[in-house]
Amino acid sequence: MAYTFNKSKEMFKRATKVIPQGIYGHFNPATTIPGSYPYFISHAKGPRFWDIDGNEYIDYVCAYGPMLLGYAHDKVDEAFAKQAKKGTSTTPPSTLLVDLAEKMVDTIDCADWAMFAKNGADTTSWAMVIARGYKKRNKIVLAEGGYHGTQPWAGSNHVGITPTDRKDILMVPWGDAAAFEKIVAENKDQIAGAMFTPYHHPVFAHSKLPDPGFWSKMRKICDENDIVLIIDDVRVGWRLDIKGSAHAFGFKPDLACYCKAIANGYPISAIVGNEKMRLSASKVFHTGSYWNNSPEMAAAMACIDEMKAVDAAGICNARGTQLKNGLIQIATSHGLQFEVSGPPVMPFIKFANEDNFKRSQLFCKECSLNGVYFLWHHNMFLSAAHTEEDIKKTLDVADAAFKVVKQQFGG
Amino acid sequence: MAYTFNKSKEMFKRATKVIPQGIYGHFNPATTIPGSYPYFISHAKGPRFWDIDGNEYIDYVCAYGPMLLGYAHDKVDEAFAKQAKKGTSTTPPSTLLVDLAEKMVDTIDCADWAMFAKNGADTTSWAMVIARGYKKRNKIVLAEGGYHGTQPWAGSNHVGITPTDRKDILMVPWGDAAAFEKIVAENKDQIAGAMFTPYHHPVFAHSKLPDPGFWSKMRKICDENDIVLIIDDVRVGWRLDIKGSAHAFGFKPDLACYCKAIANGYPISAIVGNEKMRLSASKVFHTGSYWNNSPEMAAAMACIDEMKAVDAAGICNARGTQLKNGLIQIATSHGLQFEVSGPPVMPFIKFANEDNFKRSQLFCKECSLNGVYFLWHHNMFLSAAHTEEDIKKTLDVADAAFKVVKQQFGG
Repeated sequence: MAYTFNKSKEMFKRATKVIPQGIYGHFNPATTIPGSYPYFISHAKGPRFWDIDGNEYIDYVCAYGPMLLGYAHDKVDEAFAKQAKKGTSTTPPSTLLVDLAEKMVDTIDCADWAMFAKNGADTTSWAMVIARGYKKRNKIVLAEGGYHGTQPWAGSNHVGITPTDRKDILMVPWGDAAAFEKIVAENKDQIAGAMFTPYHHPVFAHSKLPDPGFWSKMRKICDENDIVLIIDDVRVGWRLDIKGSAHAFGFKPDLACYCKAIANGYPISAIVGNEKMRLSASKVFHTGSYWNNSPEMAAAMACIDEMKAVDAAGICNARGTQLKNGLIQIATSHGLQFEVSGPPVMPFIKFANEDNFKRSQLFCKECSLNGVYFLWHHNMFLSAAHTEEDIKKTLDVADAAFKVVKQQFGG
Repeated sequence: MAYTFNKSKEMFKRATKVIPQGIYGHFNPATTIPGSYPYFISHAKGPRFWDIDGNEYIDYVCAYGPMLLGYAHDKVDEAFAKQAKKGTSTTPPSTLLVDLAEKMVDTIDCADWAMFAKNGADTTSWAMVIARGYKKRNKIVLAEGGYHGTQPWAGSNHVGITPTDRKDILMVPWGDAAAFEKIVAENKDQIAGAMFTPYHHPVFAHSKLPDPGFWSKMRKICDENDIVLIIDDVRVGWRLDIKGSAHAFGFKPDLACYCKAIANGYPISAIVGNEKMRLSASKVFHTGSYWNNSPEMAAAMACIDEMKAVDAAGICNARGTQLKNGLIQIATSHGLQFEVSGPPVMPFIKFANEDNFKRSQLFCKECSLNGVYFLWHHNMFLSAAHTEEDIKKTLDVADAAFKVVKQQFGG
């Protein structure tokens, strides 16, 4: 039966009255290829969600990352619920603060200590401040097109930003060690830290993996110049390597930021650091409402245990590889030039012969109208709840969608 | 039986290995009057919590605000748990986004729209950006000693801060309309917004209520100069007036920030605004992991309903008044000069004849060691779960504590 969005559209009308833009954030289905994507969910379970019009979707966005074990995961939910009976926000922290910090240190390769907050951006902002405190330097190097949250310094928002918001920020292309070396030389003893994602996952463009030797070169430049190397592992963290994405690429950062999948969707984020960073971290005054909440910590404990027990990163990689290979094979059989970039756990999809995303939009629209939630402007996410059968169903839907693209655009 | 902290001290040793400072945030019981305050909780219920050494406390800090209806509140917890079965973070939002925005607009006096995030600081940072986007101005006026979170611009943290972090921030004393008028004249057409708490609640100093006419004067100056008036209602919001603290003081801000008690401890924050601010708010790109989480929204719905049903602000005021009057009466009977400032729902306590807080520390220590959790450096919080009987017990403990202060310090 054809997917319709009548209830969604009605609800969106209500939304526009009391919410600027009706729906905010990454993607507004009412303004971007309207009538083809779900607006509001009714419920979610495993790798699927259902919208309020009763349409069912296999979800390859996974809440933009937090869902890694499957929606409404029993073990994580039970851990949260059990702890919630003891209180949520409390005046002193619970002992889960210590248990979870110990687990982070045991789990993440570069971690000698851990601290917790709520947003990914809490931890990236925090990392920047800790780095600045370390040698009392001001400048921070970021990569062009990198994403570190919506705080003014991060450059992802362009309204209401002042000339001073990014005055201490230096930009280099991601993955260009020579450009980094040059900027370090030009700003001798002024650079506090360098913050990068472990590989490059910009929006509206292919993901880019590091060249061999890139990270060891970067580590060396940072060491020689007393620059704090910060890895923003908020997006791909836990999916690529349980020991941290830096571990997957064979290096150790000084600070690393975690959020999203750390508790399978319950709101908690973490920063971990090495011994060198401990003193500066301990001097920074940092607190926020709910940061000591124990149920989110219980959920993170259960989630990390389960990710280890089932090898969640391994499953994501296997399913992502199945999806990637299948998509490319089917597209090729239709004579289409289809590309999938990034690690299979977080694929970015694009037709090679387009620069306006019209083919990709049509492809994603056709998939959405047939129960597969893909995105063209942002990397997608695999989860450990996606089964081989789910991927097969997805590839059937993709097959039909490629056919429509072929009909409309030719090769 | 005397309160001891053996298990707490043992756990703190573990904590120091994996967490900078062991316990971070407002208050480290191991370094501030050690051996007199609880370190880690075991569980909490109603207005009480129990630490891991089995010591019981009537809590007058309420997680620094979030707990308003009592710890582990059945109705709020059930609403959260029921919705969590449908997923936590999901790719599209649930319809609770709309339901909760409508409830905020129906409830808060100044609100024509609402948006949600996780931290209080998400919303204060957001408000600043929306204000700057409104007339494309850069400067923001804050009050000396005001607290708006730990982001660099807010001035509460002093390590790792750069000279540019607060370059666009102008400071005035809280509650001084003439000083505000002067700074506005000196920065003609450059001030985007002015962010204040509805009354002044600094740390280590008495709270200060607005003079009559202060807010109407401030509203007038802002209107005449196209300055966005932002109220940071994160701390006292919901305790003073369900319609917003600005309503209690008889004025309407353009933007107001909410967090803490909005969902009785579940992590969600909100910004509300008037029609004038809608366009700028809709232009700002703002998103974060978990910001669309539906269980926290369900908890907020249930919490707001319950706050209305039981008149939570009214109960807090009644119990706070009982506590304030009782403390002053008992202190006076001991010949002590004891002061309680701020609205009764968020009292700040201090001995009049001290400037080093030594009397207050001793008083709070004695209370803590007898099961009453008070603070001397930060305002305290009443909740709707505190009973008349709890206040009576508290006053008995305070009586004995005042006696000790009298013995040690004299009058």
